[in-house]
Amino acid sequence: MQYPSRLLENAVQEFSKLPGIGRKTALRLVLHLLRQEPTEVEQLAEALVTMMHEVKFCSVCHNISDSDVCPICADQRRDASTVCVVENIQDVMAIENTQQYHGLYHVLGGIISPMDGIGPSNLEIDSLVKRVEEGGIREVILALSPTMEGDTTCFYIFRKLASFQVKLTIIARGVSVGNELEYTDEVTLGRSILNRTPFEGK
Amino acid sequence: MQYPSRLLENAVQEFSKLPGIGRKTALRLVLHLLRQEPTEVEQLAEALVTMMHEVKFCSVCHNISDSDVCPICADQRRDASTVCVVENIQDVMAIENTQQYHGLYHVLGGIISPMDGIGPSNLEIDSLVKRVEEGGIREVILALSPTMEGDTTCFYIFRKLASFQVKLTIIARGVSVGNELEYTDEVTLGRSILNRTPFEGK
Repeated sequence: MQYPSRLLENAVQEFSKLPGIGRKTALRLVLHLLRQEPTEVEQLAEALVTMMHEVKFCSVCHNISDSDVCPICADQRRDASTVCVVENIQDVMAIENTQQYHGLYHVLGGIISPMDGIGPSNLEIDSLVKRVEEGGIREVILALSPTMEGDTTCFYIFRKLASFQVKLTIIARGVSVGNELEYTDEVTLGRSILNRTPFEGK
Repeated sequence: MQYPSRLLENAVQEFSKLPGIGRKTALRLVLHLLRQEPTEVEQLAEALVTMMHEVKFCSVCHNISDSDVCPICADQRRDASTVCVVENIQDVMAIENTQQYHGLYHVLGGIISPMDGIGPSNLEIDSLVKRVEEGGIREVILALSPTMEGDTTCFYIFRKLASFQVKLTIIARGVSVGNELEYTDEVTLGRSILNRTPFEGK
């Protein structure tokens, strides 16, 4: 495609580097920005650059943070004896949104995936072992995606933590709330029967 | 949704102002940027800010341009006696990509749409009349979308240019190339019969 302006082309080029944004969408976004006040666009640009330079990762759980220790790890009211292991920052936000968990987190920064060249050494697994080693943690909850890569990572962590006096649990796999039973795949349905819980009429 | 970092929240907030980008997509884009080199993000930010401050609009056809007169208007090889009236910059690019047109353009910057509060005075119609008035233009091609707003704009321009010695044409409406006849709507099909052209076996 031929662009009437090199400046426009540059901006489209930069935008289309983002995931899921092709050249047509990038052009639409850039032309939208062109109709805005320059200060609006400067705000966007500044928010991105400031974030890149100033954002930190929590030295304890590796969650994104504005300070050296993230608000969750610094919160005295949270249960520091329980650590929930998740793949990434979005997962922390998803679990926080359930309002069902009051312990701490440990963000791995990915899962073991040999196909993508991600091995245990690329992830924050050693620092998890170190946290457990230092004591004070009674339970480690594995909250990774129920995929092959997730299961591999769970098993790796299980072996790494086997020698410590720590309870290792995994989030329940079962039928999704609101889903029809007949459309649930058999592996999930089988798991939900094996892992049935006592029904107490609640 | 609760964000673990104010800087992250700011960036997501700014991104989600873009059309078609909600908070979830914005978060995905921002987290992608976080994994890039800071220089990459600076490039994006700079491309946007530079574009906002330096981009110009052609003083003749109102197309976006790096210089005072756009490359199309400045090109001596193009036919300056034909002007194609389009709604916006994307339409210029779409017609240029067909490689079937060698005249000049006139970008209206929108179409008459009372529902959106856009009247003739918000568009570059007066400057079109002035271009025709100055002479040298033999044909004005109306290449607006075949919608109610497009038709209204065409009719308005028709009345404005009625007193001038200029040929006014409109792009052909007919069946799309590659479409099945039986799925073409009756208005389009009716038009394509009324506006049939001599078949010369080519």
